[in-house]
Formats: sequence, C-alpha cells, structure tokens
Amino acid sequence: MQRIKCTVAYDGSPFAGYQVQPGKRTVQLEIEKALSSIHKGEELRITASGRTDAGVHAKGQVFHFDTKLSIPEDKWPAVLNSKLPSEIVVRSAEMVPEDFHARFSAVKKEYRYSVYRSRTADPFKRNFALHYPFHLNLEEMHKAAEHLIGEHDFTSFCSAKTDVEDKVRTLYKIDISEREDELTFAYTGNGFLYNMVRILSGTLLDVGRGKYSAEEAGAMLKARDRSAAGKTAAPQGLYLWKVFY
Amino acid sequence: MQRIKCTVAYDGSPFAGYQVQPGKRTVQLEIEKALSSIHKGEELRITASGRTDAGVHAKGQVFHFDTKLSIPEDKWPAVLNSKLPSEIVVRSAEMVPEDFHARFSAVKKEYRYSVYRSRTADPFKRNFALHYPFHLNLEEMHKAAEHLIGEHDFTSFCSAKTDVEDKVRTLYKIDISEREDELTFAYTGNGFLYNMVRILSGTLLDVGRGKYSAEEAGAMLKARDRSAAGKTAAPQGLYLWKVFY
Repeated sequence: MQRIKCTVAYDGSPFAGYQVQPGKRTVQLEIEKALSSIHKGEELRITASGRTDAGVHAKGQVFHFDTKLSIPEDKWPAVLNSKLPSEIVVRSAEMVPEDFHARFSAVKKEYRYSVYRSRTADPFKRNFALHYPFHLNLEEMHKAAEHLIGEHDFTSFCSAKTDVEDKVRTLYKIDISEREDELTFAYTGNGFLYNMVRILSGTLLDVGRGKYSAEEAGAMLKARDRSAAGKTAAPQGLYLWKVFY
Repeated sequence: MQRIKCTVAYDGSPFAGYQVQPGKRTVQLEIEKALSSIHKGEELRITASGRTDAGVHAKGQVFHFDTKLSIPEDKWPAVLNSKLPSEIVVRSAEMVPEDFHARFSAVKKEYRYSVYRSRTADPFKRNFALHYPFHLNLEEMHKAAEHLIGEHDFTSFCSAKTDVEDKVRTLYKIDISEREDELTFAYTGNGFLYNMVRILSGTLLDVGRGKYSAEEAGAMLKARDRSAAGKTAAPQGLYLWKVFY
C-alpha cells in the first residue's frame, strides 16, 4: 500500500460542506466516489486536514488515502480530475510515508476571508465573498487584530457546537489587505476551532463599523464565552488557503 | 405611464438563458416576477436589448418597462434588488421618454469573451471563463482579428438556428488583452448575430492553435456558410458587457 497526499481546490457553494453526511452532496463524497471508480468499485476512505462547512471554499485543502495502484504521483491529479465534477480540482499529489497524516501531521494552516465593499451587490461575487458596503475604520481593525494574535484560549471565538476540550490556539498573524473594493483577512495559526475564522472576521468587521473598540475585541478573549464576541461572518467569504506540514 | 430604463448584471450560470421559456428559470422571468410583486400582482413585461443564452452572463444588459408607480428613478435599483434573487442585480435605472426602446434604440454593443490558460482547471472559474490550456500564437490571432473587423456579411459566424435575414453587421473593433493567465476578447459592433461572438472567439482560438491562418479566418467571411468558420466557444466565457444608446 502506498499513501498519497493530495492538494485540492473546491468551490464550496454547491456542497453541503466537506464531510460525508447521509443524503447530502459533499466534497468528501465526490472524492471518495472518484477514487472508488478508479479502484474498480472498491470503497476507499480519504482523510482531510479538517472539515469545511457548507458554502466554504478551499484553495489548498489536503487529504490522504492509501492505494494498491501503482500510478506515478504526477499522474494522480489528472486521473482524479477526470472522475471529479468541475467544482473540485486536485492540484497536486505526492507519495508520502505511511506515517503522514493529513490532519495530525499539519503544523500550521492559513485561512482567508474575503469581503467586498461596493455599494451595490455583485452577482459574480455572491458565492465568493461577503458583501459589506459600509464605512470601515481600518486603523481600528488593524489594532484589534494585534490584540487577537498570539496564544490564547479562543473559547469566545468558537461555536458552542463543538466537542473540542482544549481551546487554546496560537494565531501567528492576521494580515488585512485592501485591493480596490476588496478586503481580505489572512489568518495563520497552529490550529483553528469550529467557526473561529468566521467569528474573528465578523468581530473585526464589527470593530470596523464602530460597534466595538480594538481594546474591547481583545478583552473578548478573557470572557471565554461565545456571546462575548461578534457575529459569525457568512460562509461564502471563507477559504481554507493552505495547510503546512 | 412612465418608461424606465434599467441596466442589469447577472450571473447566467443558474439560468436557462435570458428569455422566458415555459417551465424554465430564466432572467426575464425573475425580473418580471419582481416587477409584478412591486406592482401588487399586476403582470408586467420587460423588453431587453437582446437575449442571452443559457450560461451566458451580463455586466450591462439593458431593459425597459412602463409603470404607473411614481418611484424616483434612483430608488428603482434598490426596490427591484430587494425582490430579485442574488444572481441578478439592477445597477442603475433612469426615466426615459416613451420612444426609448431597449432593443431598437441601441446603436452599439460590447461583448467580452474570457479565456483562462492555466494548466489545471480552476474550480472558481468554471462558470465564468473558458479553460483553454494550450499554446496560442497571439500575433496570428491579432492579425485574424484585423481581417474580421469592418462591415461584412457574417453568415459564416452565425448559428444556422436563426431567422434573421440580413446578416450584414459592422464590427468596429476586437481588442485582445492578456492579464496573467487570462485572455479577454472585447468585441464592439453595431449589432451581433446569434452565437456570433462565440463563433468569432472559437475561430480566433483555432487560429491561435494553428488550425487556421489569419488569412484563412478572413476568407471564412466570403464563404457565407456556418461550416466554414471555427468552433462555437462555450457559453460560460461570454459576457454582454455594455449597450450603447
């Protein structure tokens, strides 16, 4: 058996999220169907770096699987893409040792959250960014980001719907960049809790509109209570950008 | 009665084209439903500058309608957008004299066709550009474009499925621009036949790959026969960009 690591991009808008759920069209289901077809009907399971929710996108999700087939690593993307729907594209593949694990071997992840600020909505961006046509105090948002980076208990920035016990994570950086009417938040950290990036993004936007000050955003961490933080920003702005090993 | 002219953008991918067809979800149907709702159930018809096919987009389609309501012109976009699905966005509206006609008053149109050339497909572009990962001779394509502009009988560049008799049109220009791995053809003309922009784009791409020379592309006009020209490029790359009055 050979373990294969794949990097995959997907448009999350037509899917009920990454993870297999009965009766739903999910990214994992489509990839496992493609692999099963390549393996003459044999059922295969894949393991990803983590889930993504319904409507959330990936530029660089990573998964692994084990195969008996001796397909050269550089052929795997074309072999898989020929069986996958066009919403999912395997970008690269490599043979890895059997102790590689897409989830447990990951040391760092980058997520991005996209916002666009034009006065009227753009039908071409509706599934790919959050429309937010409001004045924003960017200086205050940058200050708030400074308060949020570092090693913290992120309970306030985690959906209550989680069974993870240890909510301490390290956010290495939050880059806020502007290009024309687009605003992108790039988050790099050693791990992320359920909805964490969307709650951080919603909170930073709330700071931008003046609902909270930068100091108040920092103080939300101490509350260790989801209700202390800002809104959960909509899923279509979120991209799992890169997983580091 | 007041005639209103609206400029509208839409993502054509979820629609069976612009024009109303029984049992299908179309752009015209959605706009007429929105207007009917605004007019308390009264049925209204809109008239557009022209149709677009299934999967074809618009950045600046124009339509008009007549109303008894006295809504200020600058309020119409918000009023309509509040009733429209997010794939359709009215960008502007203005009161026009009753002799304005979205189709017959148009003097010039611009269409654009988008191609992207990265080696692997991009799931985020699958509905918005043609994936064309081939070497292209751009110099020859520019030459072919020069042969195609001007006043010509464009029968060779028109789908046989048309009942238009006069196929003489004037193409004022074809701009071919490159930005990173994207190639855009911008066509400006006094009118366009059914599938004309898609056949022109397919032919220019065929020239780029060496299937025809620039001179051969020019000579296709003389044949006045659809089978003389190149392929009809896929709908998702096409945008009705602007209508001039």
